[in-house]
Amino acid sequence: MAWSGDALTGHLELLDQRALPTVVNLLRIESVEGVYDAIKTLAVRGAPAIGCAAAYGLVIAARSAGSYDEFLRSAAHLRSSRPTAVNLMWAIDRVLNDLAGAAGSDEMRDRRPRDLAPHILDLARAIHAEDADMCDAIGRHGAALIKPQTGVLTHCNTGSLATGGSGTALAVIYEAHRRGTPFGVYADETRPLLQGARLTAWELQQAGVDVTLICDSMAALVMAQGKVHLAIVGADRIAANGDAANKIGTYSVASLAAAHGIPFVVAAPSSTFDLSLADGSAIPIEERSGVEITEGFGRPTAPPGVKTFNPAFDVTPARLIHSIVTEKGVIHPVNRETIMQNLAG
Amino acid sequence: MAWSGDALTGHLELLDQRALPTVVNLLRIESVEGVYDAIKTLAVRGAPAIGCAAAYGLVIAARSAGSYDEFLRSAAHLRSSRPTAVNLMWAIDRVLNDLAGAAGSDEMRDRRPRDLAPHILDLARAIHAEDADMCDAIGRHGAALIKPQTGVLTHCNTGSLATGGSGTALAVIYEAHRRGTPFGVYADETRPLLQGARLTAWELQQAGVDVTLICDSMAALVMAQGKVHLAIVGADRIAANGDAANKIGTYSVASLAAAHGIPFVVAAPSSTFDLSLADGSAIPIEERSGVEITEGFGRPTAPPGVKTFNPAFDVTPARLIHSIVTEKGVIHPVNRETIMQNLAG
Repeated sequence: MAWSGDALTGHLELLDQRALPTVVNLLRIESVEGVYDAIKTLAVRGAPAIGCAAAYGLVIAARSAGSYDEFLRSAAHLRSSRPTAVNLMWAIDRVLNDLAGAAGSDEMRDRRPRDLAPHILDLARAIHAEDADMCDAIGRHGAALIKPQTGVLTHCNTGSLATGGSGTALAVIYEAHRRGTPFGVYADETRPLLQGARLTAWELQQAGVDVTLICDSMAALVMAQGKVHLAIVGADRIAANGDAANKIGTYSVASLAAAHGIPFVVAAPSSTFDLSLADGSAIPIEERSGVEITEGFGRPTAPPGVKTFNPAFDVTPARLIHSIVTEKGVIHPVNRETIMQNLAG
Repeated sequence: MAWSGDALTGHLELLDQRALPTVVNLLRIESVEGVYDAIKTLAVRGAPAIGCAAAYGLVIAARSAGSYDEFLRSAAHLRSSRPTAVNLMWAIDRVLNDLAGAAGSDEMRDRRPRDLAPHILDLARAIHAEDADMCDAIGRHGAALIKPQTGVLTHCNTGSLATGGSGTALAVIYEAHRRGTPFGVYADETRPLLQGARLTAWELQQAGVDVTLICDSMAALVMAQGKVHLAIVGADRIAANGDAANKIGTYSVASLAAAHGIPFVVAAPSSTFDLSLADGSAIPIEERSGVEITEGFGRPTAPPGVKTFNPAFDVTPARLIHSIVTEKGVIHPVNRETIMQNLAG
């Protein structure tokens, strides 16, 4: 992801993740609706990455708006593109709060939003750069969790495609690899949209990490066979008590890890925490079209008209989470107090 | 599945399960290699169904063989088509033992195998008819496990497409439905080959059973949401202590059911037991091509050259199995003694 050019005439460049790994296509996005669609249809995905994309989207929203109210409506529209990942809301709020704080809301309403675009681009670039720094810090804090000659299981994609930097869970894997630790990764393919097969396997393969692709239903078996010693995933929103929403299937991995005595670790920047939620029960879970299950590969693989249930996320209770790695350090054990300590640190 | 015509000029008719549910194609099979390929490539699948198909295959083997030794070689070839399901070995052994018992092995070698074909067809038809009766009996014994207003989770396909009759786990579901019990089924899609999406959802939909299709990774969530009260699956081989091999992902379902306090039930005819194995550790587990994972939907969904692990089955330990339903009754609790009592009954 990159912004090309200046705030008033430039555009957002995104690698279209829907087409990977068979097609490497760079999208050029110049409208608010283009940013909205890219997030909604998962051309860009991964909680930190959609935060960065939304921040760049606000540059376009500002330069295209005739009034500050219109700009705010565009911001609200972007905010509605996906409901679960809190980083999206966090990035938009950060830009809006900065603008309001710089000038006061009332004064803002009198200014041409177009004039704000260069400042918003500076903010978006800062958010993006900080995200990259956070990824590296997560990698440094988490790398020691991966011991030599072990197996690491991961679910969905949490690498350079999902963030503004090297990733969250994959940042830990990349840093351990950079340090020369010998280990192997089992990547869940992550149905229905196969982010594990299409993105994680591709990223890790390109980075020279030893990766084996499995179906989600095989994770229990590789655990029982003693091939996995650590499960590590990202998160889209973490409540104050540590309950963590992440890609559907994550709760399954966490439950199975617990049954096999394997530590289950979440890696996420502090912007993923939503301290307004006491626990995970209030995290909104996006349900997506059943077509992702029944025709997810370009042709029907289920009978017409079959009923489906297609939640895009699930919530893993804190009691199943061994530790949470943020850019500020490792939270262990996971509870309200240790989380507050980490975030204050 | 049906044999059409007489033993010397007839053929085996099979619904091609690879093409369902989008194409309903009836295969006409007249050679041993055709039967071998149909089993190997999963045109016919499901432990009891491949037992029946192999028995019909021996009719073709007999009428095509120039000598009894050639017939035995064809039988050994059919036996090698898939390693895990013991019903395949059981059906072939039953025919060969009958032939040897009827005349003595030495005398057999002097007879033209072609002359045996009509008798083998009678045996195959008897195996097929008995399988249908066993399915109905499994349904009757198991139906009471499904209580009104409950949710039932199943994995893979264990219905009329997988057996010579109404099924194993699905026979239980069909019988509860016939009795008017109101309940709903969650069908795991069952990666990599989607037998749940392509076959189970199709069968249940046609039978008017309330079915909801989910990805395998969603089973844990629907359990946590209280939507599932019983998990029921088939089996490909059950050891003397109750350890049960079944489609990959079954062990995951069993582990998750245990974590959520949900009874996990196996439904299988007595021919599925392999009492020569003390436990499940010696059950051979077929590994299939990684292409089923990386190109399972007709186009590549993973990067070229990625390493895969694709076991077709896993083994669920007896301690996770609440009960086993056979045509002779319900085995509960599951252990060597209760299994021997059931099989002797």
